[in-house]
Amino acid sequence: MPAAPKTDSTPTLLERRKATLGSHSPLFYDTPLELVSGKGVWLRAANGKRYLDAYNNVPHVGHAHPAVANAVSQQMRKLALNTRYLNDRVVDYAEALLATLHPTLDRVSFGNSGSEANELAIRLARFKSGNTGLLMSDYSYHGTTITLAQATTGLTTSEPRGENVRTIRIPDATGLDDAATAKLLATSLAEVDAMIASLQEAGFGVAAVLFDPLFSTEGLVKVPAGYIDGLVQRVRTAGGLYIADEVQSGFGRVGRLMWGHELFDAVPDIVTMGKPMGNGHPLGATVMGAELLEAFGAENMFFNTFAGNPVSSAAGHAVLKVMADEQLMPRAAANGALLKRELSEVVAGNARIDEVRGDGLFAGMRFTDPETGEADPATAKRVVEAMYRDGVLISRIGRNDEVLKIRPPLAFQASDAEILVTKLGRIIAAL
Amino acid sequence: MPAAPKTDSTPTLLERRKATLGSHSPLFYDTPLELVSGKGVWLRAANGKRYLDAYNNVPHVGHAHPAVANAVSQQMRKLALNTRYLNDRVVDYAEALLATLHPTLDRVSFGNSGSEANELAIRLARFKSGNTGLLMSDYSYHGTTITLAQATTGLTTSEPRGENVRTIRIPDATGLDDAATAKLLATSLAEVDAMIASLQEAGFGVAAVLFDPLFSTEGLVKVPAGYIDGLVQRVRTAGGLYIADEVQSGFGRVGRLMWGHELFDAVPDIVTMGKPMGNGHPLGATVMGAELLEAFGAENMFFNTFAGNPVSSAAGHAVLKVMADEQLMPRAAANGALLKRELSEVVAGNARIDEVRGDGLFAGMRFTDPETGEADPATAKRVVEAMYRDGVLISRIGRNDEVLKIRPPLAFQASDAEILVTKLGRIIAAL
Repeated sequence: MPAAPKTDSTPTLLERRKATLGSHSPLFYDTPLELVSGKGVWLRAANGKRYLDAYNNVPHVGHAHPAVANAVSQQMRKLALNTRYLNDRVVDYAEALLATLHPTLDRVSFGNSGSEANELAIRLARFKSGNTGLLMSDYSYHGTTITLAQATTGLTTSEPRGENVRTIRIPDATGLDDAATAKLLATSLAEVDAMIASLQEAGFGVAAVLFDPLFSTEGLVKVPAGYIDGLVQRVRTAGGLYIADEVQSGFGRVGRLMWGHELFDAVPDIVTMGKPMGNGHPLGATVMGAELLEAFGAENMFFNTFAGNPVSSAAGHAVLKVMADEQLMPRAAANGALLKRELSEVVAGNARIDEVRGDGLFAGMRFTDPETGEADPATAKRVVEAMYRDGVLISRIGRNDEVLKIRPPLAFQASDAEILVTKLGRIIAAL
Repeated sequence: MPAAPKTDSTPTLLERRKATLGSHSPLFYDTPLELVSGKGVWLRAANGKRYLDAYNNVPHVGHAHPAVANAVSQQMRKLALNTRYLNDRVVDYAEALLATLHPTLDRVSFGNSGSEANELAIRLARFKSGNTGLLMSDYSYHGTTITLAQATTGLTTSEPRGENVRTIRIPDATGLDDAATAKLLATSLAEVDAMIASLQEAGFGVAAVLFDPLFSTEGLVKVPAGYIDGLVQRVRTAGGLYIADEVQSGFGRVGRLMWGHELFDAVPDIVTMGKPMGNGHPLGATVMGAELLEAFGAENMFFNTFAGNPVSSAAGHAVLKVMADEQLMPRAAANGALLKRELSEVVAGNARIDEVRGDGLFAGMRFTDPETGEADPATAKRVVEAMYRDGVLISRIGRNDEVLKIRPPLAFQASDAEILVTKLGRIIAAL
């Protein structure tokens, strides 16, 4: 006998949510999705429907991965205490994490989120440089704190831009020929020079440049070769530090590389981490060289209560182990290449879409109006909502929310790519 | 046959820790303590020795409590995703948490730490008041971020005090008669007036006063009746908000009350939470009225990735359930009163110690030099280290680190109090 259809609890839950979390707490989709469980890249909704998750990077090694759940569960039954007591868990994890980074990045300060990681990174850069000026991408987001809100350019905040913040346009060479790319590189580096000079003239100096090496919020921008190294060299000449925010680009997202910043020659002074780090367990980290941390520690009593506790460390370490055991980086490289190839076939000759962007298991497609060439967020939104109705979760990024964001958990398989591409192809063909 | 003695792994672990977390990552005690497991208020060290935990408030309902571990474990095997999708876990928990607060405090924004909670509280206060000035206790600590570091007075930070920060001395009426207390109240409120005027004259205005209602860092100060209400009224007249930081004083620590701020008539505009909230799971919250959150949300796209995920919500909710099931508040009231009574007998007539301070299951004893009356941190340190050698964990607070900090998990029982008092009595008698 089939089960009776479930009562749809969503409307009531939505009202109860508004009456506790407020009406502005953000929700995806025109009709919000109530989820109850997940496994791998598949999610089950309250109404019984299954969804392919091609969006979330927090469940990095797959939803509800048993190895991470077991590690957390076992350690929670043992001990969850702060790092003012010695415990081997945090040290084991720190060693494993640091082993994935350049040898000059040999100290880690754990935290509980990407926001905390970026706050500490900026604190460190201010301390080291003696400056307060920040150079930020003009369409970016790095966290929820006051300092980060004053440096936010990619979403709405009521805070005015900090007087110590200057913004730069990350150059996008998508579709440009060599000559145009060279010209773009020159004008972009000239803008960097001008913004550094402006910070210096205003007396702030340069503490740091902070960016996501994949430029995810910006829409997976294709930076001209030499831009990042030129930018970093200029910041360092001004006494500032290079902070790479790996919250979206790290942990093997770029299949062939562990870290987004490895796409460029320049080695960061500070690397920040968050979202995928604990497969959902609140975990962040700020990585730097020993000299910087020792100098900062000598003048600051810095302690983060939850950070590096044995349970968080068990979660983070389990993620690294699963990545190795299940060969998730080579799989991300192979499946990312497959996805990009197949998506490219779907969009070939479509006047609304330029080339498929992204790297590794992170793809984007930018929609423009075929007549005017203007960004076309309305069509991108229609595609995201149609994919949702079809059981596939993706989202949007870019300066005008006009770029599809396809960024599944690394557990994504070739068969999942086929499902996604088939459905997306049908939707795009019907536009 | 007895087991062979364990090799002491601590020296090696300490070296490995320094080579990853740095040499300044703080550790308790002259000889650091390596812990492997806990249960209730008891901890087991790597060398096999057992310790009574009379210090930690993060393992609020007891170390490795099975109900919290089970809740986290079950939810981790199901789903750990962000609140952009609907899920009943976070709403159930939000309702349960808000039910413990004054009816005007009816909205919650979850986070991952007390630092995040206080950052958001200050953001909200700046937004609502249109001001940036902060009034802070002159010996306090509220978190690790840049904004909070610039307002930190109770530990070493390299950041200069923010130009928008003014400090006030929280008056301590311990040992004063009525006339002296009345005089102290008047001079202390006059200082508040002066600091508010200073913020206004400098153009910052008053955004908020932020304090821990138990004044834990300050050393469990006994504020004169009327001080807090007078302080809050003055701040509100200046357009500022009252933020109560319940990271140490909340969740039934004050046995007869759920929240430290209930010790006073004034109801906070914003309440922040952290440490004990998830029994070790990284969890924080900022609670406020609907009007404030709705206004802020209308002008700010605010979203915290890990916050309020189903696993964090399960952990927080389990803590509230265990508190009710095990009657931890009435137990904290009874055992706190017992502890205070017995400690008072121990110190009676001891010229080095004034009265026993604190409220609920949080006790302090201040050491002074009998000759000079000066704070005596050296003796307090000797006592803490002697208690450690005797198998009991306590710590120190106060302006000079001269006050013993006795703040066990709420699972602390009368028999635990007997052990603590007996050992402490012996150590104090031998001073």
